[in-house]
Amino acid sequence: MKAVHSLTAAALLGLGSGAVAAEDAMLERAQMLFEPIPQSAADHIGDRNPITPEKVELGKMLFFDPRLSASQTISCNTCHNVGMGGDDNIPSSVGHDWQRGPRNSPTIFNAVFNVAQFWDGRAEDLTEQAKGPIQAGVEMNNTPSNLEATLNSIDEYVGAFEAAFPESENAVSFDNTAKALEVYQATLITPDSPFDQYLKGDTDALTDQQLAGLDAFMNKGCVACHNGVNVGGQGYYPFGVINRPGADILPEADRGRAQVTETAADEYVFRSPSLRNVELTAPYFHSGNVWSLREAVSIMNDAQLNSLLTEEDVDNVTAFLRSLTGKQPEVEYPVLPISTDETPMPDIPDYPRPTGAEG
Amino acid sequence: MKAVHSLTAAALLGLGSGAVAAEDAMLERAQMLFEPIPQSAADHIGDRNPITPEKVELGKMLFFDPRLSASQTISCNTCHNVGMGGDDNIPSSVGHDWQRGPRNSPTIFNAVFNVAQFWDGRAEDLTEQAKGPIQAGVEMNNTPSNLEATLNSIDEYVGAFEAAFPESENAVSFDNTAKALEVYQATLITPDSPFDQYLKGDTDALTDQQLAGLDAFMNKGCVACHNGVNVGGQGYYPFGVINRPGADILPEADRGRAQVTETAADEYVFRSPSLRNVELTAPYFHSGNVWSLREAVSIMNDAQLNSLLTEEDVDNVTAFLRSLTGKQPEVEYPVLPISTDETPMPDIPDYPRPTGAEG
Repeated sequence: MKAVHSLTAAALLGLGSGAVAAEDAMLERAQMLFEPIPQSAADHIGDRNPITPEKVELGKMLFFDPRLSASQTISCNTCHNVGMGGDDNIPSSVGHDWQRGPRNSPTIFNAVFNVAQFWDGRAEDLTEQAKGPIQAGVEMNNTPSNLEATLNSIDEYVGAFEAAFPESENAVSFDNTAKALEVYQATLITPDSPFDQYLKGDTDALTDQQLAGLDAFMNKGCVACHNGVNVGGQGYYPFGVINRPGADILPEADRGRAQVTETAADEYVFRSPSLRNVELTAPYFHSGNVWSLREAVSIMNDAQLNSLLTEEDVDNVTAFLRSLTGKQPEVEYPVLPISTDETPMPDIPDYPRPTGAEG
Repeated sequence: MKAVHSLTAAALLGLGSGAVAAEDAMLERAQMLFEPIPQSAADHIGDRNPITPEKVELGKMLFFDPRLSASQTISCNTCHNVGMGGDDNIPSSVGHDWQRGPRNSPTIFNAVFNVAQFWDGRAEDLTEQAKGPIQAGVEMNNTPSNLEATLNSIDEYVGAFEAAFPESENAVSFDNTAKALEVYQATLITPDSPFDQYLKGDTDALTDQQLAGLDAFMNKGCVACHNGVNVGGQGYYPFGVINRPGADILPEADRGRAQVTETAADEYVFRSPSLRNVELTAPYFHSGNVWSLREAVSIMNDAQLNSLLTEEDVDNVTAFLRSLTGKQPEVEYPVLPISTDETPMPDIPDYPRPTGAEG
């Protein structure tokens, strides 16, 4: 995969119109390989679960409501923090009873554009995905029936579900909870990054170093797994195809997609993550043990590209990746309706309280 | 404390102009005992820590930033949720390593108007208060030096501190963190409740039952401890002055203000809580074990008023308390700056991760 239209080469040779032609060719190639984040994900979800204002509003309440968890202390936003790039910036999330999740929490931003959800792609869309953490013992540790009882005990939620799902006989349901969450999360997208401005024809939107990084990214292999609207998130690939990283980065016990498909060929295969807003989502990889973006690029270079990238390329690709940070969603914090006498109690394992102490 | 200007009595007697006179007299008495929440707390804080837009903006970032905690997973908003009445609606908060706090988390809304902070008043203002949870082992478990190192590692925070505290030589400090938090929290006030509209002269703002409740509240003793702008929060009183509640409500080990003053007379003395937005802040009391507002009123009636309130009074006072819910703050979620290579790592006790599992 040798660079054909290398900007660096053209620039070094000082070609006048040749350099412009190379720039044009690179933009054209980028436009073939990637797409800008659109201003709305409505077309992407389509008729399966149409985006309506009522569903967005309900989904937002649910997203921020800690009563989705058994302890009533953990909300979706706890691990997919809208102020922190849509994730929690720790190796793996802290859930019910301070248990640790097995994999790094992926960003919710632009997740709607991924081909499937979770690191192993076991949920085909965000509706199916939403049902996972709510029930996972190490995350929210809730049950569909307890959640439905909670929501049914609060009139304002019942009304919001009926407004969002007028066609449903039982509007307040676990399924509709997940659907509303999908629709709200589909609004958490980040258009207008410098790279998107570039893709739309503004060749000044990237710095020279970022352009050099894009050149290496496209011509030295990264793009094979990281392409499309999300610069990744579109397919499944073995991690460590050339050199397997150490156990801190690729723990032996987590066999990735093989655990979903029960197929030997899927051992240590993962869905390539989106690189959108990647500078905001450290630490990196499913194991979440790498904090530096440059180091993550370097590890990928070794594991996947047989070190085809030079040290300078690694610098440049890292700079390019920082151009993928888009406009962060503007979120007004929802005012949540209060619990009632019928609301199930929070289930908090009975740690003794310190006695006679402050608070 | 017999009712002198009793609306109920006047209404029952069907007095025409007499009823109007009684209504006027009740409003006048209420205006002497209470004050509406102002639109700004600027006058209240005054020159001690002036409210500036730069401090509000910085304080908001800090309030929502989980990096104030050692684990980098717990923010002020975790236990003082701006979407849930400014508290967390569980008996006592879940903190570092899933430890439980000793007392129910008080609402941050209108806290700026309290005479002092914490259930025992041991912090004289919100600046001093903010330093408590950040360092408490069962809450955020952080240290001033680790927090300062965190903030100093992030250029955007350094700039925000310098803009907020131009007079400080070392703008990024634990003290200034607390000051910025105080200023932001001083914006979390809830004016324009029905009761405030009533205090401003709109006698239709309360229902007949709420008016009857206000009448009982003022004339049967509640007002002795719950008065002023916050309908409470202004002084210290023994809990169980007539009848001591059971140990689930008044645990023996927590001697209240006596632990601060080391004075026998302060045994089981607490700062009376504000009743502003009280319908949003269940469960009730410092022990947080009473979920029903009516039951809380009933317990106070027994413990403090020698059951002077009739069952109907208890209903009416409960209805009146619901008129104390004001306009909830409109909060746009802040976009937080990212950590850097110099930012201290999150300190999460090393619970083993489930292996080979989902995520």
